[in-house]
Amino acid sequence: MSVTAADGFEAGGFACGIKPDGVLDLALVTTTDRRPVPAAAVFTTNLVQAAPVQVSRDHLRDGLAAAVVLNSGNANAATGENGRRDARRMCELSAASLGCAAADVLVCSTGLIGVPLPMEPVEAGIPKLAATLGPSGDVAADAILTTDTVRKEAHERVELGDGAAVTVGGMAKGAAMLAPSMATMLAVLTTDAVVDSHALHEMLASAVDSSFHELSIDGCTSTNDTVLALANGRAGNAPVGPGTPDGSRLEGAFRHVCLSLSVQMATDAEGATKLVEITVRGARTRDEARRAARTVAESQLVQCSLNGGDPYWGRVLSELGVSGARFDPEQVEIAYGDVTVCRDGVQAEHDAGQLGKVMSERSITVTCDLNAGAEQATLRTTDLSHAYIDENRRTS
Amino acid sequence: MSVTAADGFEAGGFACGIKPDGVLDLALVTTTDRRPVPAAAVFTTNLVQAAPVQVSRDHLRDGLAAAVVLNSGNANAATGENGRRDARRMCELSAASLGCAAADVLVCSTGLIGVPLPMEPVEAGIPKLAATLGPSGDVAADAILTTDTVRKEAHERVELGDGAAVTVGGMAKGAAMLAPSMATMLAVLTTDAVVDSHALHEMLASAVDSSFHELSIDGCTSTNDTVLALANGRAGNAPVGPGTPDGSRLEGAFRHVCLSLSVQMATDAEGATKLVEITVRGARTRDEARRAARTVAESQLVQCSLNGGDPYWGRVLSELGVSGARFDPEQVEIAYGDVTVCRDGVQAEHDAGQLGKVMSERSITVTCDLNAGAEQATLRTTDLSHAYIDENRRTS
Repeated sequence: MSVTAADGFEAGGFACGIKPDGVLDLALVTTTDRRPVPAAAVFTTNLVQAAPVQVSRDHLRDGLAAAVVLNSGNANAATGENGRRDARRMCELSAASLGCAAADVLVCSTGLIGVPLPMEPVEAGIPKLAATLGPSGDVAADAILTTDTVRKEAHERVELGDGAAVTVGGMAKGAAMLAPSMATMLAVLTTDAVVDSHALHEMLASAVDSSFHELSIDGCTSTNDTVLALANGRAGNAPVGPGTPDGSRLEGAFRHVCLSLSVQMATDAEGATKLVEITVRGARTRDEARRAARTVAESQLVQCSLNGGDPYWGRVLSELGVSGARFDPEQVEIAYGDVTVCRDGVQAEHDAGQLGKVMSERSITVTCDLNAGAEQATLRTTDLSHAYIDENRRTS
Repeated sequence: MSVTAADGFEAGGFACGIKPDGVLDLALVTTTDRRPVPAAAVFTTNLVQAAPVQVSRDHLRDGLAAAVVLNSGNANAATGENGRRDARRMCELSAASLGCAAADVLVCSTGLIGVPLPMEPVEAGIPKLAATLGPSGDVAADAILTTDTVRKEAHERVELGDGAAVTVGGMAKGAAMLAPSMATMLAVLTTDAVVDSHALHEMLASAVDSSFHELSIDGCTSTNDTVLALANGRAGNAPVGPGTPDGSRLEGAFRHVCLSLSVQMATDAEGATKLVEITVRGARTRDEARRAARTVAESQLVQCSLNGGDPYWGRVLSELGVSGARFDPEQVEIAYGDVTVCRDGVQAEHDAGQLGKVMSERSITVTCDLNAGAEQATLRTTDLSHAYIDENRRTS
């Protein structure tokens, strides 16, 4: 159960040979009856967009999709017109095998940038993959992983006002949406709720904004980042509109699934030994709160000190100071866990033993109060470790 | 010779006990006759400004200074009103020992943020330091180092239109101006040229802009970053104005010294194994060229691949895409050294042996042509190594 948790979806995974040694590298998610249903997406904001992002954007113009085909081991990015041809071909192969239109297939890729996608294994693999589809999403979730060490799945069930129960399920790979580590973050979500594509897009964008967008490992945004959602309407509920009580319930389910997936990604981030939540409060605007939290979270120096379990709040304060947020440095309060180490911008008396205990935990919260307003924001990140460098210093 | 390369300056260094084990931690640079002379500064843009930055800014309001006192081992930042009192006290102690006014002394500190400056060793140390001053700048240059492994000094001599020869000398510590590694970048420059403080500030700001500002190790801007310049007029030249031929010559000398110091800083950057020059050309505006070069230079993923000697241009292209520069991804050309690895946004045929040789060098140039305009910019950076993490994971 995961991307197939909602009624009326099937999935599968296959080792077609993009990756060496028979590792899973191809996945399909589809409506059980192969009919196109309302669909929505959030794509990378990178100016350099991978071929599958361009093709999926094109195929989504009518707001409908019947299936998603995904490969790992190659990003099909920076591959020009040939790359777009290959991405379209992946949709055609999937459509031919499933019995739907190519324009109703979306496509995602993740892996190395700048290397032509090897089409021979893909051509042979997709028909074989299509013959393996079933109600479990686990193999599909495995097949989209790159440097991930564990599959990421989540689902949530909510009851709507008319008594109908709807489910949202999903799978993901990578380490963050706006700021993924190696290559890319991908997620596919499905629901059996009745909801049109415009409402679905609004809910998805909002859910992504308060989950994947609040995770940053290294500030790098990939060419392939994609979050997709398909809604097949099997639950038979009254159509869910945004801004209604049911809209809030369904959006909450999407948020729950996205947040669970994003925490799983942070926990599995390359080489991370600490899972860190940075909260900035007392900011003048929500945007300043987010910028401040992001600047602290993405600071190499802060990440290094977290790796060492070192409560060096001076670096946190210094990063707040370059974030663009407006505040009086001599009003700032900083705490690790519940131990306040800085008050009025200078060091605060605290219990060293208690602080040592906080810093030795795998999960650490850092709370910065700017005392300049009423807005706040939270960003999740990790420490910076030797293993992160080792993972990313060579592509081969 | 260095910060004392120009006629009429003295310097010295001393181990007063801020750092343990008798390591040098206190420095003075002064005019030989102790008289105030035109002076100028470029300070950190961080909203959180260390006490010495606040005090030096105040003391520079009349554009005159006779001496600079510096300490390493403690940044005297995030120390509130007590910190300002301590920074002012350093100026008073220096003035009393040298026989000048406290308001004519500038002050710099570098080291840990958020720890009160230990004033006992400073009170005892400054008079002793003042008694050791002499024509060599080497001990002063040693005394301002923190995690640096070698002292950084440079000087340049130019002939002006009236035949007078003027000298610019300087010393520095740290790893960058706008983006220093551990704690802070400090530089003190001196010249014997006749130049007023306004012209001096204009030349200094311009020289800093095309040297220290073009170096970024980790994108972190400290609370203490400071570049100071003093001009004692001993050369007896006709006053140098900005925008004149002599102005260009003197500014060129400042730039030469700043550039030399910034390259020395990059070479000595914490744990760096590669010295990397990122050039972005063909940008629509100079600002876009700089943002693009900075985004590539500060990318953890790019820095990791450089650490591995891996010519992974896909990451470089991806970072260009999030920089905010406007260009057509399918027009981009990327080269490592003189080996073009990406043309028209896709991989280019190249000689693997030649590329391997380029990547194995300690100095690597990466050139990105956006083919979108005529502007260009260069940023210097380093790779990201295990040693960088080790240096920064614990403050004690």
